Amino acid sequence: MYINKISHYIPKERVPNSWFFNKNGTDEEWIFQRTGIKTRSKAGEDENTNTMAIKACENLSANLDFSITEVDLIIGATYSPFDTVGTLAHAIQNHFKISNTKVVSISSACSSFVNALEIVEGYFAIKKAKKAIVIASEHNTAYYNPKDPIAGHLWGDAAVAVLISKEKLSENDIYIKDILTYGLANIGEGNKGVVLQPNKGGIKMPHGQDVYINAVKYMSELVKELLDKNNMNIHDIDYLIPHQANIRIIKKVAKELKISTEKVFVNINELGNTGCASSPLALSQNISKIKKGETLIFSVFGGGYSGGVAILIA
Amino acid sequence: MYINKISHYIPKERVPNSWFFNKNGTDEEWIFQRTGIKTRSKAGEDENTNTMAIKACENLSANLDFSITEVDLIIGATYSPFDTVGTLAHAIQNHFKISNTKVVSISSACSSFVNALEIVEGYFAIKKAKKAIVIASEHNTAYYNPKDPIAGHLWGDAAVAVLISKEKLSENDIYIKDILTYGLANIGEGNKGVVLQPNKGGIKMPHGQDVYINAVKYMSELVKELLDKNNMNIHDIDYLIPHQANIRIIKKVAKELKISTEKVFVNINELGNTGCASSPLALSQNISKIKKGETLIFSVFGGGYSGGVAILIA
Repeated sequence: MYINKISHYIPKERVPNSWFFNKNGTDEEWIFQRTGIKTRSKAGEDENTNTMAIKACENLSANLDFSITEVDLIIGATYSPFDTVGTLAHAIQNHFKISNTKVVSISSACSSFVNALEIVEGYFAIKKAKKAIVIASEHNTAYYNPKDPIAGHLWGDAAVAVLISKEKLSENDIYIKDILTYGLANIGEGNKGVVLQPNKGGIKMPHGQDVYINAVKYMSELVKELLDKNNMNIHDIDYLIPHQANIRIIKKVAKELKISTEKVFVNINELGNTGCASSPLALSQNISKIKKGETLIFSVFGGGYSGGVAILIA
Repeated sequence: MYINKISHYIPKERVPNSWFFNKNGTDEEWIFQRTGIKTRSKAGEDENTNTMAIKACENLSANLDFSITEVDLIIGATYSPFDTVGTLAHAIQNHFKISNTKVVSISSACSSFVNALEIVEGYFAIKKAKKAIVIASEHNTAYYNPKDPIAGHLWGDAAVAVLISKEKLSENDIYIKDILTYGLANIGEGNKGVVLQPNKGGIKMPHGQDVYINAVKYMSELVKELLDKNNMNIHDIDYLIPHQANIRIIKKVAKELKISTEKVFVNINELGNTGCASSPLALSQNISKIKKGETLIFSVFGGGYSGGVAILIA
């Protein structure tokens, strides 16, 4: 399977660290030192998970060599839904009036994008789809509490749309060589490390230290596991595309893997943690940098916990 | 693929129609005539989507001929999540300490259970799983507005857990012969027919008439489409297991399909609309009635819109 095209939408507003001092008492420099975040993206009053996703898909549609209505599978990935009945995937089908398509929206927290790739892999295998859109869209600021001194200042908003095809459609398609996901809710604080309970205060991070430790551990180990399985090693990797939760996690993972930080795509400094959209967004932002034949690896970790890795060859 | 075991959990409380008179002015008999509902199940104060799912899985675990920790895929199906980060699937993995399993939670509204079966089909095909749990759990009363005279009185709470295996594990396994899903958000009022916006008032049904018309149309047509594809016809069906949104929809679908209402599993009268849990729950409640060799068909419709059908052979 191949990434045929990838596009994104990022809301215009950037909220600086200094904005939080009056909200939760955190200091500009303290936030930066702890997280690597300088600003974060914030959706407008009239935006939500679905409207951002539609804009990302409009950008995708403009890049496609065929009509977006040829798509036969739409997977929405989000843990910050606008609507859980008229879901993200339904909103895309409705907006573009795509008939004859399957729709489902998923969450496996911040690992959802890689889980979605794996679900697409399954649909292609059972011959029920050939051209899929995966949309990762997060509206964190709909569920965050800016007064929370632990997690209030971490979150950004963004959407990414990816056209995945079973067959190679163009010379520039990126081959998805292998995908690995794991549920990790049996580990450490598991499903209590980060929570988003819509009726109980939204996003909280009760066990930040445990999340940090396990994110570093599994984002490194799962990369090694998938490379081993494919008889590859870290020297084969041109770019690491990590989940963007914290620059300290990203640097620690790079160090564990012995991969130079110049080879790591980062957007957390400007955008904050944009959830499951963060790593495909980093790919989309850097797509023009990638040369034919280069190898990339996604490594993501979700707060539930769950992990995912995928090897791509340009 | 096969249904090896199925178990459920229904909260004890039953709320009678008369309870709503002081809430939204609807009359006991009027509700019954319009919906077929006499009472609906309601979760307790300390229950939620995840706790109900755990109870359904404890019942499932007690019925299994092997340890629940052998499961290698957990799919949570819900549009009424307790936690979108530590999701339904993560909660099951955490509670039963199941290692080496994939976890993801999904919503395609009330059709989610059949969508989940199709995702399992994909995981089995790519050889990444052999034994899956699908849990459909809905905590509608966490998101409903009992004062809403249009939709306040419709909803019930329940959870169902199903062990799906790639290979036949016992003589009593039910064969899943074929599965069909469609996104239908491009039809009629699409993703605005029923909505559940956690930050905008929860569950509402702005376009009930459009939902009714399209539910009847697609719950009938998709059955015919899947039977045709399998060179079967309605006379081959021993039991219809419809989504339980409204008895008038169920009766109209039975009439369209020319299937006797005695052949239709119904639980809406006692439990209300238990969302994507409603049809697998009807199967679980009637499992002892089914004879070896009998054929059953699921037909579901989700408010987003989306539809799903699956043929089972006992």
